[in-house]
This record gives sequence, C-alpha cells and structure tokens, in this order.
Amino acid sequence: MDAEVITSLQNPRVKQLVKLRDRRPRDAAQQFLVEGYRQIRRAIDKGHPPVELFVCPEWYPGAQGNEARLIADAEAAGARVFQLNKPAFAKVAYRERPDGLLAVLPQWRNDLDDLALSVSPFLLVVEAIEKPGNLGTILRSADAAGVDGLIVCDPVTDLFNPNVVRASTGVLFSVPVVIADSGDVRDWLQAKGIRSVATTPAATQLHTAAALTGPLAIVMGSEQYGLSDEWLAEADDTVRIPMAGQADSLNVAMATIITLFEAVRQRG
Amino acid sequence: MDAEVITSLQNPRVKQLVKLRDRRPRDAAQQFLVEGYRQIRRAIDKGHPPVELFVCPEWYPGAQGNEARLIADAEAAGARVFQLNKPAFAKVAYRERPDGLLAVLPQWRNDLDDLALSVSPFLLVVEAIEKPGNLGTILRSADAAGVDGLIVCDPVTDLFNPNVVRASTGVLFSVPVVIADSGDVRDWLQAKGIRSVATTPAATQLHTAAALTGPLAIVMGSEQYGLSDEWLAEADDTVRIPMAGQADSLNVAMATIITLFEAVRQRG
Repeated sequence: MDAEVITSLQNPRVKQLVKLRDRRPRDAAQQFLVEGYRQIRRAIDKGHPPVELFVCPEWYPGAQGNEARLIADAEAAGARVFQLNKPAFAKVAYRERPDGLLAVLPQWRNDLDDLALSVSPFLLVVEAIEKPGNLGTILRSADAAGVDGLIVCDPVTDLFNPNVVRASTGVLFSVPVVIADSGDVRDWLQAKGIRSVATTPAATQLHTAAALTGPLAIVMGSEQYGLSDEWLAEADDTVRIPMAGQADSLNVAMATIITLFEAVRQRG
Repeated sequence: MDAEVITSLQNPRVKQLVKLRDRRPRDAAQQFLVEGYRQIRRAIDKGHPPVELFVCPEWYPGAQGNEARLIADAEAAGARVFQLNKPAFAKVAYRERPDGLLAVLPQWRNDLDDLALSVSPFLLVVEAIEKPGNLGTILRSADAAGVDGLIVCDPVTDLFNPNVVRASTGVLFSVPVVIADSGDVRDWLQAKGIRSVATTPAATQLHTAAALTGPLAIVMGSEQYGLSDEWLAEADDTVRIPMAGQADSLNVAMATIITLFEAVRQRG
C-alpha cells in the first residue's frame, strides 16, 4: 500500500465523504459510498472497483489480514488509497462498528435495453419504494429468486443510498438494476411481450392461483400507497397474498419475497 | 385524564423506564416497554393493557385526538397515568420520533400446553434467533401465515426487547408465543404427533417438494449457525430453499416467510 495520509478533518476529501451520505451531493458527484470489507470485496469482484479507498488500520477488527489484499486489488483496479487517523475515520464512517475500510464508487445507470433477458424473461418491477431497508431486502430477494433484472420505477429512495447498499449485502453489485419511468416500463414490457402481474390486496385472485410461468414481470407498489392506478389498470393480471392476521403484517419486502418464490416454484 | 405530573429526571419511575431497555432489569421486573400510539392501542385491544402509561402532550404529533381515548382506555383497564414534560419524555422515549406515549406492560409466559391447536396444527419453531429485527419480522410472518403459535427455542434475543416489540408492529400481542427449551419442544411435538420439518441449506429436498400438509411444525435455525445438530438429527424431514444468487441473500426472516407461505399454499 502506497497511501497518502490524511490527518485533517478539514481535508476536502474527508468533507466530501460526509457529503456523499446525502442524495443531492451523491447525485451531483455521480458517486456513492460503500463501507466495510465484505461489501467492498463484492464490489471489486463484481466489476465495480472503487475510485477512492479510505483506510484506517487502527479500526481493522482482527488479525485476518484480508485488508492488505483488498487494498492491493483496489489499487490494481485504479483506486487511489488514502489513510486516515482514527478520529478522522470515525467521522467519515457511517456504520456503528467501523472496520477501517470506506470506498467511493462511481454510480452506474442501466437502460431497459441493457437487460440480458433469458428465453423466458423473469423480472421484478417495484414502484416508488420509500424505505432504503425495504429496497435493500428487495434486491436480496431478487438475487435469491434469480430474476433477470430488477426495474425500479420512480424511486423515492435512491439506489445508492448508504442504507440500501448496506441492506442489500452486496447484491447491488450483481443484480442488474434499471431505474425507469413507470410509463416507459409498461410500454417496454408490452413491446417485449412480457406479462405483468401486479400485487394488490384488492385483487380477488390469490398469487398461487395465477400463472406465473412464461415471460413475467411481477409488479409491487410502494409501502404507503401500493401500486398507482396506472399500473393496476394496465397490468395483465392482479394477485393478492392470503392474509390470516393483521392487515399490515406483511410489508412490501415480505410480499415481494412470497410472490417471487411462488413464481420460482411454478417456473420449476 | 387524572395524571400525576413528573418533572424530574431523577424520579425513580423515569429512571426505571430507561432501565427497562436492558434485558436484566426487564427480566427482574417482569415488565417491558411499548412505545407509540399504534402499538399501545393494539396491546390494549388484544388484552394486554399497560400497568403504567407515560404521556407528554407536547410530543403528540397532530390534531387527531386519539390520545385522550387511548389514555382513558388504559386507565379503565387499570393503568396509572403519568405526565412528563418535554425533556423528560425525550429522555425516556427510545424511538427517533416520539409521539408522546410510552407504556409499561407486564410480561407474560405461555407454556406449550397453553397453545390452542387447530385440528391440523400448524406451528413455527425458531431456534436461538439473535437479532431483534429478525424475531419481529418472524412474528409478523407467523401472524400473516396464520400459525397456531410461534415457539421460540433457547432465545438469544428476548421476546420483550424494545426492538422486537417495534419490529413486530404489535403482532406480539396477538400471536401465541411460547418460549421453551429445544429438547422439551421436540418431545412435545412427538407426543402430539406433529411432524417437524427443518430448513437447512444442506437438505437435498426443496421446500416445495416436501409435504407441508397435516400436523406440521416448520423449524428454522439461527442467523449464524443455522439449526443445531439435535434439531437436524431429530426432525422428521429437512428441506432447503432454492437459491439462485449469493449464498447469503436470504436471511432467516426471509427464509421463514418463504417456507411458511409454501405451507399455506399446500394447506389450501
């Protein structure tokens, strides 16, 4: 490691790290933060190396020594490495227990036509998700279910929010994600001949009774409002999940998991 | 409302409220905290009224006026009501945005034989869950799936942890929960003729290929270690969930939802 050492909290790079927690500076810089060994490792392994890596050996958790290798890999992929002292790192870290590694990555954008669709496409579409933790969990579910891609319509929380990144446990770096306008997504699905199945408590048909085979997009609405009228009117089918208990026992992330894995079952 | 007014942070009741966030004092007092209108409302409605209710009108969020009714209902059910000033309430509240309502409830304990089993019992068993958020989500899933009861074996996080209560969104007050030793649970299931199906990534059979009808207990392991050898050896069947992506994309709460709702599907 050939790191530049930063000791001042007034250093512009340190100040920028704190700013990147907020959406506006994040969007302006087209960069975002990834903290911790495991997530930075996954980012590099999945072809998203950092542009900057901030390290603080005094915060390294143990004697495993994985850090040196990670730093070397980041440098080899073009990252600049900076070393911070303990109080400076504590200021820039956003995890409760920092492990001495914080990276800045470039954001990326995929278009709908960038998605590599399988012969029988299997997609997840979510509309206007508000909570970073839910979007992170939805990313994990999409990965586990093996969808061709996750399409995030009209996002309220942005994909590169630090809490989305954290809650996704690195899945953000491997699941193809497209951010798009709902109307464009509907047009594109129709043009591709992909059937859209919207989930809503108002549906009469259970999710297990609908055909979830063939070219399929499962469409989930927002936490507070569910799906917009446009999605409900234009979806090819609507389904609901049977609920035994309180009306709000299932949140959108839980409903997404249930619906995705019913599709996985039907698709064999 | 005929509330006693507390203005001192040195008041023993105020000090006790802060202590109840920790397990040892919580266990010693056999009480726990429930914060916020929605959850306290559910507790009262489900037959778990508070013994003490701490209120602070300066923190009430809006003009809905539900608080007076809640306080009256709590008093009618035997609660003592105390009014705190704004800084005192800020100290005892544990939510980020307090709404001026914090209750102390007595803990309860159910035995296995307290469970009201349906003709074809449907149970969820979890072993040694560590994270309050996961236990809360598992409670919600159990409620949504309509199980006869949730059996919590050898808990690492306790059921009355404030973050379990919060994450359960009030389901704690309605789903029958039993805390028990794993060995006792296995003996009891066997005596009752209830088939246990354990979930483990090491199983060869998919959860969708196993028969999840009839008297059934789905058994889930802990976040870090999965199920103990005893459960794996003595379960009547083992199943795994198909995983397309990263090995750790599904956490225990997500795996629980998937397995429960496959059982719901099969049980019609």
